[in-house]
Amino acid sequence: MRDFSQDPHWLSINTATIRKSEGKELPLPDIIEACVGRGIRAISPWRDQVAAAGLATISKLVKAHGLELSGYCRGGMFPAGTPEGLQAAHDDNRRAVDEARELNARCLVLVVGGGGKDIALARTQVRDGIAKLLEHSRSVGMPLAIEPLHPMYAADRACVNTMEHALDLCDELDPSKSGALGVACDVYHVWWDPKLQAQIARAGRERLLAFHVCDWLVPTTDLLLDRGMMGDGVIEIRRIRGWVEDAGFAGYSEVEIFSENNWWRREHGDVLDTCIQRHHTFV
Amino acid sequence: MRDFSQDPHWLSINTATIRKSEGKELPLPDIIEACVGRGIRAISPWRDQVAAAGLATISKLVKAHGLELSGYCRGGMFPAGTPEGLQAAHDDNRRAVDEARELNARCLVLVVGGGGKDIALARTQVRDGIAKLLEHSRSVGMPLAIEPLHPMYAADRACVNTMEHALDLCDELDPSKSGALGVACDVYHVWWDPKLQAQIARAGRERLLAFHVCDWLVPTTDLLLDRGMMGDGVIEIRRIRGWVEDAGFAGYSEVEIFSENNWWRREHGDVLDTCIQRHHTFV
Repeated sequence: MRDFSQDPHWLSINTATIRKSEGKELPLPDIIEACVGRGIRAISPWRDQVAAAGLATISKLVKAHGLELSGYCRGGMFPAGTPEGLQAAHDDNRRAVDEARELNARCLVLVVGGGGKDIALARTQVRDGIAKLLEHSRSVGMPLAIEPLHPMYAADRACVNTMEHALDLCDELDPSKSGALGVACDVYHVWWDPKLQAQIARAGRERLLAFHVCDWLVPTTDLLLDRGMMGDGVIEIRRIRGWVEDAGFAGYSEVEIFSENNWWRREHGDVLDTCIQRHHTFV
Repeated sequence: MRDFSQDPHWLSINTATIRKSEGKELPLPDIIEACVGRGIRAISPWRDQVAAAGLATISKLVKAHGLELSGYCRGGMFPAGTPEGLQAAHDDNRRAVDEARELNARCLVLVVGGGGKDIALARTQVRDGIAKLLEHSRSVGMPLAIEPLHPMYAADRACVNTMEHALDLCDELDPSKSGALGVACDVYHVWWDPKLQAQIARAGRERLLAFHVCDWLVPTTDLLLDRGMMGDGVIEIRRIRGWVEDAGFAGYSEVEIFSENNWWRREHGDVLDTCIQRHHTFV
């Protein structure tokens, strides 16, 4: 297992983690500057942040600093009630692939969309949507990473909720393990799963495209915006990282924390310093 | 599939559903009276409510009204940090079995306890705890129903979070399907699971000891106390009931709603009337 205790070499910052500083929106160029200033080599930005600053601007900044993108957030949201809605989702996902390509991201993360009142239908639309998007993403060489989300998001955010389900989709749509399709393993979403270790082993190097960390707080006061800093909750992050590395993953450990009432209220430099320290001690 | 549209014959009320009326605690004898007055034939009471009224009092009331108990809530909470803690949990669970026996419940529902910071250890303690409790529960003829809880409770309430995991435990501890061990299937906890239909079929009549209903609201504002009334959320309750009945289940459909800011603020008679109406139309 790699030693993370000395430096932030394998630390990536998902830019949602400091999208607010002391409660105020922080522009992506400022986020990049704060990361680079601390020796952080990789980020994973969100599309809305990139759009606000301009894709060309961010692309230049990333190249100028030699930053890597451990992922790009995000594509997905495939289900829709009409053919037009399905087509609009596809068109938007194509643009997300192209942006990820422009930024040279390691993968485009897919949050596939919620199940609503007919989860079986939504899952069919997700499968078909990924299959169609793969035609384009393969052609430009951008891997798609299906992120299974915690089951508490099954209705409204993602109806793929376990690593097993995500890998079943991968095996169906990319049986040759070409590298074009895999998973993003976020400990927050999957830590509870008794089959996690086995499914990580099943995924292997070819399917493990991203590894995200934060922590599960007890109690958790909000379903979306109360994620914890590594070490403040119950997730055995290092144990899970061991499984992921045993399976062949050798990429970044990406910190992704949504925290309306704690970390987003703090000064973003302090938050980054805490991420680095906890990366050393708890990841 | 049974026809629920005409009468509440197969409706059971989990007494937590009206444990508060207009925000005030409602004693169990009042809950029973309200149910009986509406032709409801079955309830599933909680231990603390029984203790407050007295076991003998409740036992008499139940017999006098010819009420059935679709279950008794609840045993479990097996994990502990010390041998004394494990023993205390066992002793308390023995008492729960005896109370369930006195009340002639169909099963004792087990909420197995949270995983804390070492979910693998907790799961071992759960397995060992159920194995030990089975010696007693078998001897008095009280079936134990493992209730897989939604994964959002894995840390603090139950580290068994899928029907598959619960059934794996059943197969390990009661391989002959003797009837002594099974599962409680609560749609709130398992509706999101892509393997749900298959696992319900696997459970079969021998393992399906209870069927609980409520609804998943979008948005859900609290992890514990924001359950919805059937029909107000996204769960395809009737579809799941179809699977359960196809597997051989022929018992009660038990309404269990925890709702601090909605249903517990209403008058309990109105809540019961709504349960009956929704039982007809959405279950």
